[in-house]
Amino acid sequence: MRTGVDFPIFYFIVLLCMGTPGSSHLKKELSLEGYPSTYLPTRGEPWPKPQHVTKYGQLFMVVRPPVFRFETVRNTCDLVEDALKRYYALINRRHSTLQRFRNDKKNDAEKPWKGTPNYVGYLDVLKIDLMTPCEAYPNENMDESYELKIDTPDLVGQGLLVASSNWGILRGLETFSQLLYPTSDYAALQLNSTLLLDYPRFSYRSVLLDTSRHYLSKQVILENLDLMAMNKYNVFHWHIVDDQSFPYQSRVFPELSEKGAYHQYTHIYTQEDIADIIEFARRRGIRVIPEFDTPGHTRSWGYAWPDFLTECFTSRGQPDGTFGPINPLREDAYKKMAQLLEEVINVFPDSYLHLGGDEVDFDCWKSNPEIQNYMQSRNLTDYSILESAFMLEMMNIVKGLSPNTTYVIWQEVFDHGARAINKDAVISVWMGNQTEAGKELDRVTALGHRAILSSCWYLDYISTGRDWPKYYLCDPQNFNGTSAQKRLVIGGGAALWGEYVDSTNVTPRLWPRASATAERLWSSQTVNNTEEASHRLEEHRCRLVQRGFNVQPPNGPSHCLVDWNTRN
Amino acid sequence: MRTGVDFPIFYFIVLLCMGTPGSSHLKKELSLEGYPSTYLPTRGEPWPKPQHVTKYGQLFMVVRPPVFRFETVRNTCDLVEDALKRYYALINRRHSTLQRFRNDKKNDAEKPWKGTPNYVGYLDVLKIDLMTPCEAYPNENMDESYELKIDTPDLVGQGLLVASSNWGILRGLETFSQLLYPTSDYAALQLNSTLLLDYPRFSYRSVLLDTSRHYLSKQVILENLDLMAMNKYNVFHWHIVDDQSFPYQSRVFPELSEKGAYHQYTHIYTQEDIADIIEFARRRGIRVIPEFDTPGHTRSWGYAWPDFLTECFTSRGQPDGTFGPINPLREDAYKKMAQLLEEVINVFPDSYLHLGGDEVDFDCWKSNPEIQNYMQSRNLTDYSILESAFMLEMMNIVKGLSPNTTYVIWQEVFDHGARAINKDAVISVWMGNQTEAGKELDRVTALGHRAILSSCWYLDYISTGRDWPKYYLCDPQNFNGTSAQKRLVIGGGAALWGEYVDSTNVTPRLWPRASATAERLWSSQTVNNTEEASHRLEEHRCRLVQRGFNVQPPNGPSHCLVDWNTRN
Repeated sequence: MRTGVDFPIFYFIVLLCMGTPGSSHLKKELSLEGYPSTYLPTRGEPWPKPQHVTKYGQLFMVVRPPVFRFETVRNTCDLVEDALKRYYALINRRHSTLQRFRNDKKNDAEKPWKGTPNYVGYLDVLKIDLMTPCEAYPNENMDESYELKIDTPDLVGQGLLVASSNWGILRGLETFSQLLYPTSDYAALQLNSTLLLDYPRFSYRSVLLDTSRHYLSKQVILENLDLMAMNKYNVFHWHIVDDQSFPYQSRVFPELSEKGAYHQYTHIYTQEDIADIIEFARRRGIRVIPEFDTPGHTRSWGYAWPDFLTECFTSRGQPDGTFGPINPLREDAYKKMAQLLEEVINVFPDSYLHLGGDEVDFDCWKSNPEIQNYMQSRNLTDYSILESAFMLEMMNIVKGLSPNTTYVIWQEVFDHGARAINKDAVISVWMGNQTEAGKELDRVTALGHRAILSSCWYLDYISTGRDWPKYYLCDPQNFNGTSAQKRLVIGGGAALWGEYVDSTNVTPRLWPRASATAERLWSSQTVNNTEEASHRLEEHRCRLVQRGFNVQPPNGPSHCLVDWNTRN
Repeated sequence: MRTGVDFPIFYFIVLLCMGTPGSSHLKKELSLEGYPSTYLPTRGEPWPKPQHVTKYGQLFMVVRPPVFRFETVRNTCDLVEDALKRYYALINRRHSTLQRFRNDKKNDAEKPWKGTPNYVGYLDVLKIDLMTPCEAYPNENMDESYELKIDTPDLVGQGLLVASSNWGILRGLETFSQLLYPTSDYAALQLNSTLLLDYPRFSYRSVLLDTSRHYLSKQVILENLDLMAMNKYNVFHWHIVDDQSFPYQSRVFPELSEKGAYHQYTHIYTQEDIADIIEFARRRGIRVIPEFDTPGHTRSWGYAWPDFLTECFTSRGQPDGTFGPINPLREDAYKKMAQLLEEVINVFPDSYLHLGGDEVDFDCWKSNPEIQNYMQSRNLTDYSILESAFMLEMMNIVKGLSPNTTYVIWQEVFDHGARAINKDAVISVWMGNQTEAGKELDRVTALGHRAILSSCWYLDYISTGRDWPKYYLCDPQNFNGTSAQKRLVIGGGAALWGEYVDSTNVTPRLWPRASATAERLWSSQTVNNTEEASHRLEEHRCRLVQRGFNVQPPNGPSHCLVDWNTRN
């Protein structure tokens, strides 16, 4: 049918000379420039990167449990045993997955890898040495450090995980599971002989989920707690209620969710749900810090308590039918808040409680005759005084109820009344770009407050492509301040606000983007090479997919040995 | 514990006077301005909006099948029966879901709604009147129009779906299922008495999925075909291979996927997979149009066929180790393409075949001595001639193999050789903003070509928030041209390129954003009110969630009666 390559070309040239040349901008958004076609994943490199790693030349096999096993020495407890069970299951699952790819169907006992250089043999057991009795709840002072030895010079042919606390054991088990990678014949998992000393750079490493703008199912929250643990996050900042809905089912005020939840039965968190979530988090060394944001962001409270909110007025002095922040002049509001906060302090075991205090809209207060009169009668013009006074009272209530509770507040509360705030308060910096946030961190820590940062980690902002490097390169200690000030920055966290996120998309939208923040908060400040990190991140995301989570691709074209829902 | 509201305020003012005022920019990205707190969904409003709807005042109940049933009159066939089974199941599922919310546990037969105004009674049966025998495959000329009558003046108390073709029956059944909404007591579904005449504005309404940058599992593709049908899309544009991987398992050239797929067993589409996908689509009235993009975007072909691609050279005339587009001077390339395209034409039953032709990189051709010599010996300097000649030959091959096949090509092929292209070719306009795309549509149709548009529907570009209105407001006929030219625009489609999309995130990222494009392509040009549409879109997304698909929220804070994975 064809006569050779010359024919179509010359045939065409004749026609072309009559043609109309069209647009010729061939370089395009979707060209392949700017990234390699595929990022190769590393093999057996943990995320976040441990503080100190020494690798030796040997390779060990880890075969399917119970041939491989954990063995506790000294202390253990339910939390440790539960974690061992989980990691057994993870290793087992990984082995099962591998079998699909195995060409050599010989029995493991035949050790098909025996001839391979540097292969030494099985790692039969990882000893788990917990040096002190377990703590029941993760807490602000928990010790997450651990030491992991695989065939080190002082421990030839053996594996040992040592930690001062059960939290370190949890972190070390996660790292151990991440050191494993498949042998080339897919017959087993292997790991390198390694000495690993690890501990977090920051003690506070949080993920914020917002269950008010959209409801998140309990199952989806648990799934994300699992992912947090696999990224060594240790705080779930639960922005549980807001303007849009009130899903927290209170014992003392059940009307709040009855009237303020999207649905009083299906879109709420019962006390049992909350207990389950706290327990699931506890077993993974994750603190659950609830936020009950006041006096703004409280519209949903008004369905049950209309008098609780400030009635807004038109410029002609008529009620306009809308409501603003909590009315700070009503004594009843403080009584109710005290009762609710007392319950909250009892329900959530953590010593931190987030009291909110952000984005208070003064316009409604300014429009309200009762508040106008109050202000005028006292010769006041700055309405931020009302916000500050309200928040100060919230803090007083909490201190009165529970002297050991630390309250966390958004930065505006500090900005509007810096000296009045108890030095114990932790200030949450969320506004501005890195320079502005840095200045705020300077101001906050200069006055002796502890600070946490989330400004650069608002993951609800999305854009096309590879956006994790910008999260990765944001450093909470990158501001002008003394080293004493920098030590007051106890960490920070990723925030996934819920305007456009619900159970349908929360997991792939959050992960592995929040992994970038996780490494910034755990690893050394000097771990900041995005090129090096990108290959580890590929492995990490595939690891999480293999574990059953729909974690999206971070870098561009790629695949995992086991893709999500791939043909088996 | 508290002494009254005055205390904290005055106490605070004293302190405040010593304080440092901080940042006070309270308006913020996450304020509530710009959108209502929640978009209320409509009740029983279809998406995309039908062409003509008349509603009468009555309300009918549709209770659980088989009390409610479909009844075919005149023609039926497997395709129709299969669709009836699917819609029975959907209606049944919806009833089951509703029961969770039902307070009144009385038997349906007690008709708890009897006292309600306008309630007339049951709709026992929807008659399905197919006027002609079934067509086996959806095709470019298929008739998708239908008429749906529920208790119209000429058919009091009855329900009737009439269509000239089985494709219209499919579309009408989807619309019927969307007219249903729950009674206020959740005891049943109801619908309004309605006369509905409907047909698509454009005959070509496609979704492009890219299975090369990332592999998509068969199950995820099927899931998205279901969603396409529920949005009345009728073309799955399958961008099956590209630079990054070659997952198509060819019978004549199995080496292409053996060496060019991400994984030769797990990341491929077997002939059986493809047959399953085509059959699944056929049952939903969706054409499957494969794209084998050449001569660029073919790097993955080179793993099996290194000589097939152009070797790129350094400026010093040494091979640089990389490969460019197909080498158009090698006769073997045309032979292989002819064999492959012959297979592809046999495997995919649709009369359209997409031949690609976009983004050919001339730099490699320019660097290659063999091609340089060829060009110089013929006094040629414009390398686009090589691209055009190659594509022209691809079109000749297809015409030789299958005279009735219509080829679709990306716009560059037209731009670079307008007059040489067979008038039958469909030109796919994908570049530029709306103005530029409009000019291209003008040029393409002025020369008598049919055109399809995707420039404004590249859904792989993401941004924070409510982005569907911009897709919604892009109109394929919004360009300067005669009405004859505008009739040559046969439609267009949404494109979700796969650089950052795989099975983990494809569904929530595509839907309901592609629903905006779906309505633009189906409904009247005058249906362009985003405010009106936003409420229907809320209902539509909740409908899809209720049917079991993780479709993300489109408008901001919201909830569905049945959220994804909500507590039951």
